[in-house]
Amino acid sequence: MPRNPHKSDFPVSQVRHYLEPGPIVLVSSRWKDETNIMTMGWHTVMEFTPSLVGCVIASSNHSFEIVRKSGECVINLPTTALTDTVIRIGNTTGAETDKFREFGLTREDADEVEAPLIRECHANFECRLHDDALVDRYDFFIFEVVKAHVAASPKHPETLHYTGDGVFVVSGKVISRRSLFRPGML
Amino acid sequence: MPRNPHKSDFPVSQVRHYLEPGPIVLVSSRWKDETNIMTMGWHTVMEFTPSLVGCVIASSNHSFEIVRKSGECVINLPTTALTDTVIRIGNTTGAETDKFREFGLTREDADEVEAPLIRECHANFECRLHDDALVDRYDFFIFEVVKAHVAASPKHPETLHYTGDGVFVVSGKVISRRSLFRPGML
Repeated sequence: MPRNPHKSDFPVSQVRHYLEPGPIVLVSSRWKDETNIMTMGWHTVMEFTPSLVGCVIASSNHSFEIVRKSGECVINLPTTALTDTVIRIGNTTGAETDKFREFGLTREDADEVEAPLIRECHANFECRLHDDALVDRYDFFIFEVVKAHVAASPKHPETLHYTGDGVFVVSGKVISRRSLFRPGML
Repeated sequence: MPRNPHKSDFPVSQVRHYLEPGPIVLVSSRWKDETNIMTMGWHTVMEFTPSLVGCVIASSNHSFEIVRKSGECVINLPTTALTDTVIRIGNTTGAETDKFREFGLTREDADEVEAPLIRECHANFECRLHDDALVDRYDFFIFEVVKAHVAASPKHPETLHYTGDGVFVVSGKVISRRSLFRPGML
């Protein structure tokens, strides 16, 4: 994958195309002069419109307070071109490290939020906190995706799916079963 | 895959091994004499212990009231051996169809809940409703996995990951990067 994939606007109501398959994502955030990145695997689509995504950002993560104070983040989709970087991001803390500089990633300005996009990722989903009802109890944030940027190709990027124990499953072949769906289910 | 894979008890704190990669799952449920099955892709692990899984069961699904009234379900993990069945289950309603009979699936008694296991699936996670705080607002249920049954092999079954539009990505190659992890992160 190019280090600077060209991206276009993408309908926020369709982010399920990239998130529902369950990839590991990178969450970037900003509070005042500080930016950070974390690796995240616990997330789910919750609604098409508004475009809602729920996710666990554990309070032990340095990003937790940044996201809570700013009420924003960007969910970035890395491909296998960034496998080792994704893991290193998950195994360092932003309390000690500027992860953008440490890992050679590029901050890009978002359109709707202050949190930075990660240029080298396949897609970037700008998020604003929609509901914090379960943050205290479960570290569970519900975000609205307010802007989406996606590289034009490939349509099905090779993504990382975490199983624990340092082991990932990579997304594989694509199969269409459109003919089995009722029209209203597509 | 055999139609009746032999399963063993599996630690509930480790269900992330199967669910964090984001597969399509089948949710089975029971209320009084009625059982049902639905196809679900919007779920996330939320905690190791207790073993929590959050998921959206839209109120338009016949399963919604069954799960809400019973406070239980089983999350079953199908492999690609069941691809067409998974889709047909998602494109019919339990209001009109006994899906176990219609699709040749076998009800098995669970240990901890009244909802039935689906024998033909690779894994079965018995769930009890843990928190319904977001059910009214988002149809979002938080379950505790109270018992897990998993087929011994393969360790990484071929699973289905939905992208919308009738298109699935199948889980592919497995890569280990244990050497890049800090011990406390494994």
